[in-house]
Amino acid sequence: MLKAGLVGVTGYTGMELARILASHPSMRLTAATSRQDAGRRLDAIYPFLQGLPGSDVVLSEPDPDDLARRCDVVFLAVPHGVAMEIGASLFDAGVKVIDLSADFRLRSADVYEQWYKPHTRQSHLAYAVYGLPELYSEEIRKARLVANPGCYPTASILGLYAALKNGICDPCDIIIDAKSGTTGAGRKAAVSSLFCEVADSFRPYNIGGKHRHTPEIEQELSLAAGCPVTVSFNPHLLPIGRGILATIYARLSTPLSQADVQALYEDHWKDFSWVRVMPAGRLPETRNVRGSMFCDISVTVDSRTGRLIITSAIDNLCRGASGQAVANANLMFGLPASSGLASAPLVP
Amino acid sequence: MLKAGLVGVTGYTGMELARILASHPSMRLTAATSRQDAGRRLDAIYPFLQGLPGSDVVLSEPDPDDLARRCDVVFLAVPHGVAMEIGASLFDAGVKVIDLSADFRLRSADVYEQWYKPHTRQSHLAYAVYGLPELYSEEIRKARLVANPGCYPTASILGLYAALKNGICDPCDIIIDAKSGTTGAGRKAAVSSLFCEVADSFRPYNIGGKHRHTPEIEQELSLAAGCPVTVSFNPHLLPIGRGILATIYARLSTPLSQADVQALYEDHWKDFSWVRVMPAGRLPETRNVRGSMFCDISVTVDSRTGRLIITSAIDNLCRGASGQAVANANLMFGLPASSGLASAPLVP
Amino acid sequence: MLKAGLVGVTGYTGMELARILASHPSMRLTAATSRQDAGRRLDAIYPFLQGLPGSDVVLSEPDPDDLARRCDVVFLAVPHGVAMEIGASLFDAGVKVIDLSADFRLRSADVYEQWYKPHTRQSHLAYAVYGLPELYSEEIRKARLVANPGCYPTASILGLYAALKNGICDPCDIIIDAKSGTTGAGRKAAVSSLFCEVADSFRPYNIGGKHRHTPEIEQELSLAAGCPVTVSFNPHLLPIGRGILATIYARLSTPLSQADVQALYEDHWKDFSWVRVMPAGRLPETRNVRGSMFCDISVTVDSRTGRLIITSAIDNLCRGASGQAVANANLMFGLPASSGLASAPLVP
Amino acid sequence: MLKAGLVGVTGYTGMELARILASHPSMRLTAATSRQDAGRRLDAIYPFLQGLPGSDVVLSEPDPDDLARRCDVVFLAVPHGVAMEIGASLFDAGVKVIDLSADFRLRSADVYEQWYKPHTRQSHLAYAVYGLPELYSEEIRKARLVANPGCYPTASILGLYAALKNGICDPCDIIIDAKSGTTGAGRKAAVSSLFCEVADSFRPYNIGGKHRHTPEIEQELSLAAGCPVTVSFNPHLLPIGRGILATIYARLSTPLSQADVQALYEDHWKDFSWVRVMPAGRLPETRNVRGSMFCDISVTVDSRTGRLIITSAIDNLCRGASGQAVANANLMFGLPASSGLASAPLVP
Repeated sequence: MLKAGLVGVTGYTGMELARILASHPSMRLTAATSRQDAGRRLDAIYPFLQGLPGSDVVLSEPDPDDLARRCDVVFLAVPHGVAMEIGASLFDAGVKVIDLSADFRLRSADVYEQWYKPHTRQSHLAYAVYGLPELYSEEIRKARLVANPGCYPTASILGLYAALKNGICDPCDIIIDAKSGTTGAGRKAAVSSLFCEVADSFRPYNIGGKHRHTPEIEQELSLAAGCPVTVSFNPHLLPIGRGILATIYARLSTPLSQADVQALYEDHWKDFSWVRVMPAGRLPETRNVRGSMFCDISVTVDSRTGRLIITSAIDNLCRGASGQAVANANLMFGLPASSGLASAPLVP
Repeated sequence: MLKAGLVGVTGYTGMELARILASHPSMRLTAATSRQDAGRRLDAIYPFLQGLPGSDVVLSEPDPDDLARRCDVVFLAVPHGVAMEIGASLFDAGVKVIDLSADFRLRSADVYEQWYKPHTRQSHLAYAVYGLPELYSEEIRKARLVANPGCYPTASILGLYAALKNGICDPCDIIIDAKSGTTGAGRKAAVSSLFCEVADSFRPYNIGGKHRHTPEIEQELSLAAGCPVTVSFNPHLLPIGRGILATIYARLSTPLSQADVQALYEDHWKDFSWVRVMPAGRLPETRNVRGSMFCDISVTVDSRTGRLIITSAIDNLCRGASGQAVANANLMFGLPASSGLASAPLVP
Repeated sequence: MLKAGLVGVTGYTGMELARILASHPSMRLTAATSRQDAGRRLDAIYPFLQGLPGSDVVLSEPDPDDLARRCDVVFLAVPHGVAMEIGASLFDAGVKVIDLSADFRLRSADVYEQWYKPHTRQSHLAYAVYGLPELYSEEIRKARLVANPGCYPTASILGLYAALKNGICDPCDIIIDAKSGTTGAGRKAAVSSLFCEVADSFRPYNIGGKHRHTPEIEQELSLAAGCPVTVSFNPHLLPIGRGILATIYARLSTPLSQADVQALYEDHWKDFSWVRVMPAGRLPETRNVRGSMFCDISVTVDSRTGRLIITSAIDNLCRGASGQAVANANLMFGLPASSGLASAPLVP
Repeated sequence: MLKAGLVGVTGYTGMELARILASHPSMRLTAATSRQDAGRRLDAIYPFLQGLPGSDVVLSEPDPDDLARRCDVVFLAVPHGVAMEIGASLFDAGVKVIDLSADFRLRSADVYEQWYKPHTRQSHLAYAVYGLPELYSEEIRKARLVANPGCYPTASILGLYAALKNGICDPCDIIIDAKSGTTGAGRKAAVSSLFCEVADSFRPYNIGGKHRHTPEIEQELSLAAGCPVTVSFNPHLLPIGRGILATIYARLSTPLSQADVQALYEDHWKDFSWVRVMPAGRLPETRNVRGSMFCDISVTVDSRTGRLIITSAIDNLCRGASGQAVANANLMFGLPASSGLASAPLVP
């Protein structure tokens, strides 16, 4: 049984990691940290875990040396800035690290600093592998530091990858209209995330290229396309818990039929069981991926306007964060990628 | 007290009309029809109206002659196809008619037939006025037949009008990513509209120019622009009751700053109290217009991609259907447009 | 136009007062206080009010003397303890006061102190009138200090009043199983009120007679019954915004038929338009009273177990707090009780 | 791999069975019937199952002989009345049967006929075992026909069992105030179950002992108590998908402290991992059991009123229906009871 540590247990990605590990056949949560809840048992803050493996872990203050001694792998579910410091320390102490923050996702420290803050551990960027298993499984298997992708980037990159890799659409005329469940806003106490501020409503935010996931999406899609890709990324907040659905508008660079694009997508993803290309005429729904690693993708050619419209849905907490982190850990330790991640989506 | 009739009371637009008229100072529901519920009192099917004006109306089978005798104005809240017949009969009988279906919205019978079905009352199209008060208040005042706009068109047209009227964006590069509450799916018993199929989920539908509101939007925007406008209209279903939010992507035809566009919009709408242009930095939310006639609009210039991004929010049932119908009736009878429609949005 | 002040605008009861006053024909919000948002306009914190009466009020620090000068009536929407101090000062300064907190609801300072905290303005208790219009309209008309009832007590007292007043059930065998929307938990930033902690779930709290509304309910019901009434009050949190539904279990002290109790309730409430006794066979729903002053009540005799089961539904924010406060203000100034409160419930 | 058949796949219990079996290590869906969808693949009606085991099953018309040949066990997820016929035929054909309807739950055909309809297969009642694993695991292991308990009875019986078995409360003074998610209303197309009729609202139904689960609860609790138990069962509809929470009011027959009852419950359930007695001061929430077999129970002594208040929460679809059915199948085939049912609850 592999021993897993979790730094930052009180947010939704920490909660989701604890949930997944509680049913994992070969990995067990053995250490978890929380500044605010140190000394409490895990099931005292998450009663849904009562009686399950890992629920008796007593939360501690974060201590990299201690974690390195007690764990085979450590997941970081803390804010950017905090993660780079503790991540680098754990890496240096020889433990495998999966960072769910943005700190090691951008290959360029300059770009990072433009969108986030000064990067104090730039030397470690070279060790980091971008943890999207469909794109980088070989690198992940050998990695000691994995930068777990953002939730919006996961849905956006998987949705656009086959089109850009195959050069069928204009790399500079792409709009991503993304909608996320409220777990994406985090578990901080904030009036704007209160039930009565979110329920029965819908709102955009960070409209017009202001969201920090923009450079991450452009980085990976540019690599896929082999040329610079520019996206207009615009997020919205859904009154649901889990789920992201991105509606992506691209301009076909050459006239292709619905059948052409459908075949291209089905062919591209045929060996990846987590990416489910919808049969023509069926569209994704966020609930169909709830609690799972699936990314459901549809492609629609709008011949009247010359556009390819892609919709891509994931569970932002599982596929877009903690489940993907566990998949990366599985790969790093030679386990099947889907170990502990095979439950069917919870519908309804 | 004006006497209002309502044909088709069992859908959500019929319910909303009954709700609004129950608090209207100068108009009273005096007749309402329903094939399935004829013989029952209005408050037997809508207990929330118990004790309010109009709640004791006994539902009857639809009979145009009888309605014409008993009413000053009749609202049609029945499906397209049904509405054209009863609407023409009522019009011929001399009563003022406001049709909430699509039957008289499209000026061209050909376009109508391309998107809907054969139009059997084409001769009446010439009498119909498109009932968007901000655009056609003079015509509405004199009209005897008003084609009440669709919900998505109301949000889309109001959102884009100032930009296209002022020629600041490309009329052929417009994407409307629209999200609607589930009242928009109607009150038919259908598995796909069940609580457990909609709640805690989000889904697109009719992606790629298939939605029937497309020609209605293009008709009115082409008139505004003075040239043909093409839009890619893509709707989604939100797990909320009321509300539409459209995120609209247009390409600026000339470089304009955020301040330029903000000023243009504020200036254009300054005399229209129902259109609220958000101050720069504030974005609409569907809840902020709940139960009201407001259309909240934001404009954002994304200079990196050369786009103007407009968000536009309305209550699809009130502003997008029945409230707008009552506003039109108010205008047709010389009442203040906002009579019976002045309540503040219900938040939270 | 009466001038209204509002102390504490950032909570849900403050928000609801601002909403109601924005449509009131004879009362206008002219002053509003908020420690955290002093200096901002009302519509900067509540964009849904943009363009409506009162939306341009600039929030100020609370200052009783200033409020007394500028207002005819002041509503207190601040926590208990804070309200007693500022309420007494305003009362002493001669302005009419409606306190939405618990500070002046309990006639006995001892009982107050047992459930809340030390009462530092006990001398003012004698001036306070319990602001439940159906029970105390005469006293309210003459009052200068109204203690606005709690939300749960409003639903519970109205539900049980006719039964206890008429002595048809055992005053010491009463269970109130109450369910409240999440606005009842307030607008504080708290993890337990986050959307993702409340949505798609349901939970009890304060089970077993621990909730502070218990003595308030018992006080008023004991007065109705003419003997001590004991209730077991047990609240639950609903994943909805507005609404309380109380299911009340009483033991019939004498065998009565469904028709007997139905007639007794209909007769008791026949002159009170806000209390809607449901016809036999119909049951309340929280949505049917949304945004309104209605209290919908059903009575069911379960002859097999000898119990009378009452269900009672209100909008906790409107009827259970701010709407009731406005109704009290209306009465205090000789306006019709329903002035500004006549909109039909917002359904759906 | 055991071969499982499913009669009636289009309701929520059928959907949940398909979901659970898709992840079961030793049981595979090999046949599924649906009158309305015969000829379609399972994943055409349930896209969330695309790519998972069983998703390629083609739905067929129900045919007992064919099912008996092709399956080791058949689950019946059809309405009562229908189930008794096909269940008896399958039983006679020698296949193991688990009936999720009410048809074989009541030991007395008279009681069945009083609450449901004529029972045409009374001779098979003697073979049926009531499938509540905590009470009847030995009998279930040997059974060939299991009557799977109702959802409300599962929550109610487990909640009250320890108290009545130990004789600590009055068997004739019990109130069950139960709240169920809307999956409990089934997947029929009905206006009353539409999203816009259920969302943001809450309502009681069948108040006053009218619900058909009453005799099932009384049957099992009377056996536990060793004397006739009478309950007043009152259900409500929650705007959530999954989950039942029952708040149960019993009268202590002897004065017991909180600690006494807490100890009695903890001791009674200490060997049953699915029943989680909450530590004193913690209360169940429906989300904490979502998608799982857990039944979370709290006990609260209200010494002021002499009552024991029990809250009991389950997932009505998993524990209250299909998960319990799979647990019964596991027992019938000598598998661990929790096989395929060990995932942690999906929170948030």
